[in-house]
Formats: sequence, C-alpha cells, structure tokens
Amino acid sequence: MTYCLGIVVRDGLVMIADTRTNAGLDNIATFQKLHLFETPGERVIALATAGNLAVTQSVLTLVSEGFDPDDSGETKTLNDVSSMFAAAQLVGAAIRTVRRIDGEQLEQSGGFDVNILVGGQLEGGRLRLFQVYSAGNFIEATIDTPYLQIGEHKYGKPILDRSVSHDTDLYDALKVGLISMDSTMRSNLGVGMPIDVMTLGQNAVETDLVHRIDVDDPYFSDLRNRWSRALTEAHRAIPRPPYAGSS
Amino acid sequence: MTYCLGIVVRDGLVMIADTRTNAGLDNIATFQKLHLFETPGERVIALATAGNLAVTQSVLTLVSEGFDPDDSGETKTLNDVSSMFAAAQLVGAAIRTVRRIDGEQLEQSGGFDVNILVGGQLEGGRLRLFQVYSAGNFIEATIDTPYLQIGEHKYGKPILDRSVSHDTDLYDALKVGLISMDSTMRSNLGVGMPIDVMTLGQNAVETDLVHRIDVDDPYFSDLRNRWSRALTEAHRAIPRPPYAGSS
Repeated sequence: MTYCLGIVVRDGLVMIADTRTNAGLDNIATFQKLHLFETPGERVIALATAGNLAVTQSVLTLVSEGFDPDDSGETKTLNDVSSMFAAAQLVGAAIRTVRRIDGEQLEQSGGFDVNILVGGQLEGGRLRLFQVYSAGNFIEATIDTPYLQIGEHKYGKPILDRSVSHDTDLYDALKVGLISMDSTMRSNLGVGMPIDVMTLGQNAVETDLVHRIDVDDPYFSDLRNRWSRALTEAHRAIPRPPYAGSS
Repeated sequence: MTYCLGIVVRDGLVMIADTRTNAGLDNIATFQKLHLFETPGERVIALATAGNLAVTQSVLTLVSEGFDPDDSGETKTLNDVSSMFAAAQLVGAAIRTVRRIDGEQLEQSGGFDVNILVGGQLEGGRLRLFQVYSAGNFIEATIDTPYLQIGEHKYGKPILDRSVSHDTDLYDALKVGLISMDSTMRSNLGVGMPIDVMTLGQNAVETDLVHRIDVDDPYFSDLRNRWSRALTEAHRAIPRPPYAGSS
C-alpha cells in the first residue's frame, strides 16, 4: 500500500508521501513516491504516486525522459509544459500510454491501478494541485476541499476533515498532514517510514522544504508521542456516558 | 454502508451499531442492525449485522424463528443454543443456508456480502464476542485485540487502536466506541444516526444498558463537540515542524 497526501492552503502547497511498497507481507521494499521537477524561479512540479509500481515507474519515465502524447511527432516532458493544467494533462496522457502497452495484461492479473497527485506552480501561473486517475482524467483541490489523498486514505482522513482549511498556515498543514500519516501507519503496515515531505510557498516557484523523515527523526517521534498522549487525555476528559446503568 | 463495533473488556461487553442503510445516495433508510436475544439470568446474545440487507434479514429470521442447520429434522433458534460458540456456529449455518438459496443470484449482481458480530454470555459460560464472515466461519475477540468491527471500519479504527485494551473500564469502552462512531459518521455519509448501544456486565447475564442515541441526544452532541475541540487543541499544542524553511 501507499499513502500520499497533498494540501493547498493560501500560503502554499504541502505534499507528503510514505515510501513503502509491498507485494504481500513478505515482500516489502522502500521506493520513493514523491518526485520533484524543479527549475527554481521557473517551475516546481511535484508528483506523488500510488498504485502498481511498474505502472507508476513507467509513467515517471515517460514524463521525465519524454514521450509523444498526441502523436504530433514531438516528445514532451514535464519540463516543457507551460501550465500546471498541462502538467496534469501530460501525466494523464502518460498513464494512457502505459495502459495501451500494459493495460490488457494487467487487467487480467489484478487490474490497472494508478493514482497520481500533481502539485506545484509555474512562473506567472497559479499554484494548483490535481489528482490524476487511472483513466487519465483528473480533479483539482479547491478552497472547499483543500486536500487530496491517494492510496490508503481512510485512516488519516478524519483529522484532515476536522483540522485543515484553506486558511491553515503552511507549516500547520504540514503538521496535520504528518498526524494523518501517523494515524495511517499505525493502522496499516503497508504504509511505512521513511516519509518524504515537500513544501512550496505561494508564488515562490522554488521549493521551501524538501525533506526525508527517517525512523529516528526526533520531531516526528515527538509529534507521535504528543499526539498519542493528547488523544488519551482528550477521551479521558470526556465524561462517561450518563445512560441508565452507567457506573 | 454500516458501521458496527463490539468491544470485550474485563468488565463486560459493549456493542454499538448505526442504523443507516443505503442503496445509492438517493435511497437511504433507517434499519435496526443491533438485535438482542435475551432471557435475563439465562442468556444474552446480541447480533450486529453488516452487508446486504436482504441477506442479514434472512439470517435474522432463520436464527430467531428457527431452521434446521444440520438436516437433523430439528429446528433451532438462538434461544436453543447452549454456548456462545454454538451461537456463532448457528449464525454461520444460517448464513450458509441463505447462500444456498440466494447466493448464486447475488454473486451475479454484486456479491454475497454479510458480516455479523455475535456477542454475549450464557449462564455458566464465558462472555464472548465473535465475527462471523460471509463464508459462515468466524473469529473471536481476544485479550490482545479486544474489539471487532464490521462495515466501514477504517475511519474509526485509529482511536480504538490507541485507546482500548482489555483493562479499559466498560463505560470508557462505550465512550471510546462512540468517538469511533463519530469519526466514521463524519467521513462516510453511509453511516448515520440514530445509534444503538448495548452493554452487558461480565457474568451478569442480563443487559446493563440498551439504548438508542438519537440526533438530539445531549450527551452524544456534547461528546462530539468536546472531541472536536480537544483534537483541535491537541494539534495546535504540537510545535510546528522544525525542518529547514519553517516559519
């Protein structure tokens, strides 16, 4: 499994991804799922990938080394697109290209399954975050729903629903995202450390933070402990049910 | 969807179930999913059901009105079983009986899907909690994993993983169970009020509490508000990430 998360707030973009892949419980490996295409001052495009690893790696190869998405005779990479919308389209086209090659065989052995977050900003354009589906189409995060999740998303969703809005500070959004990742890792062994994080300030067109959180990261350990203690105290502080029969 | 939860602690058993059923978002109804077979002092057996409503209603009819699970010529109900293990077996046999009748057609139109929690105690026996699967086989909650969930279980699992153990007080377990239900209802519209709850003290062989929590229940509203406030305070109290670039 995988858990990746993107949050767009007024101040910028946060993207977080775990690194665990598994094909059964006895075949676990670490693969980077957060990928950056950055030319400071010109473009920052981050991709977070979930789904069949062979598919996501093929898509990444296409969009970084170039392919011909519309049979025009010209190859394109993410360094050629002129907007974030075009970046999401290119990723969608790469997914469709991989499906043409491998789709039929994959459908016969478990399904063609891929989800990719595409977030970032180009100089002069808007900071945007998209989720591209297996079909190659996509949706965008909005002011009403400022986050998008892919992979094992349910365990970590309640905290996002409660605590993230468009007005959330960028580093508070990163913090809540890490709490969401912690909840997911506790409940699903298929999601695991290290965790890759990226933040991009609004209109900076240059990453603010690119960091790998490892097992021994003191801040993340402290966050996990504090959160765990706070939850315990929080439910202890709530009175017991007053219904008949309560002691 | 559905969310039902059973927790066995040293002091007794908690069972909680929502009441929403839906066949598409525009066809929502309220059906009781927590069912009690009680003869005070002799037996308390509670069933919580998830899955295809036609299947769960058929199973309930069989185990309450009687059927012949082993073609012995004798009909049996949950009022005839002599142990909780036999109760789980009878529920499993009822599922298999329904599958023989409707299974083939259901597999063709979406699948034969049912999960039933069976919890309770008979006089002289142990208090036990089982989860019976679509195949009619079952597992039991243990000291290591004192809770079992059926239906939409992921949203409400993190709080259980953190806060429920065999040593948890019975009404604290009920409280944590209600928090788990709250988290689920916030994230999945297919799980909804009212909520049915039941508690059964260890060796009481008589329900301690059977209660329906309605939309206007003041305790549950207060619990939701307190929990929401506490979570907000908890993540605010955690320092911001100290990684390079933090403001």
